[in-house]
Amino acid sequence: MIIFNHTNAAAQQDVRKVRIANIQVDSAYLDEYKAALAEHAKVAVRVEPGVLALQAVYDKAHPNKVTVFEVYASEEAYQFHLKTPHFLKYKNGTLKMIKSLELVEVNPIAIEIKPELIKK
Amino acid sequence: MIIFNHTNAAAQQDVRKVRIANIQVDSAYLDEYKAALAEHAKVAVRVEPGVLALQAVYDKAHPNKVTVFEVYASEEAYQFHLKTPHFLKYKNGTLKMIKSLELVEVNPIAIEIKPELIKK
Repeated sequence: MIIFNHTNAAAQQDVRKVRIANIQVDSAYLDEYKAALAEHAKVAVRVEPGVLALQAVYDKAHPNKVTVFEVYASEEAYQFHLKTPHFLKYKNGTLKMIKSLELVEVNPIAIEIKPELIKK
Repeated sequence: MIIFNHTNAAAQQDVRKVRIANIQVDSAYLDEYKAALAEHAKVAVRVEPGVLALQAVYDKAHPNKVTVFEVYASEEAYQFHLKTPHFLKYKNGTLKMIKSLELVEVNPIAIEIKPELIKK
């Protein structure tokens, strides 16, 4: 017997890849790293159709703890992203600035965003 | 001597409140909690001018670990949010479902979002 309902259908259609990157930055490179990350996020979201969002923040209490909330259109879009010149430039250029990197795969519960947030 | 440049001016003008909520949910209530959170996020972003984004996810590896990436227009907008009927309904209705809650205050490095992400 096949059970198939609207909830499952909707879940199966959502092929977006959502991830949280937890990054510890070497304090000596903090400003330099933040500038590189901001530039990379801006370029990737602008030029890659499959990079839907890159939202990067740092802890107020521990400024070398950086979190990036990432949304890609699909796993394929993410794999494409990894080969782009801007990603490779960011990755290679910041390797020495990173003390640790944890990548957490997540599934969306709700992605609710006002248009006003993305108007510049 | 006063040092004042464009970077500082821009930073001072950004009064948005950005926060990450790390929530451990009682596994017995997981589906119920996710439904309540999804409904709350949808309503809050739709009806409150000061709630710019509520993005909620759960870990694939540890599904009772929920993360909410929150953006409010200002501290005042957040304080208003806490008094809304929909927030109080969500908060009181889910109290018994929550094992722990950690609120991390953060500052934005880059908030880059494609319009496609918010089209339904």
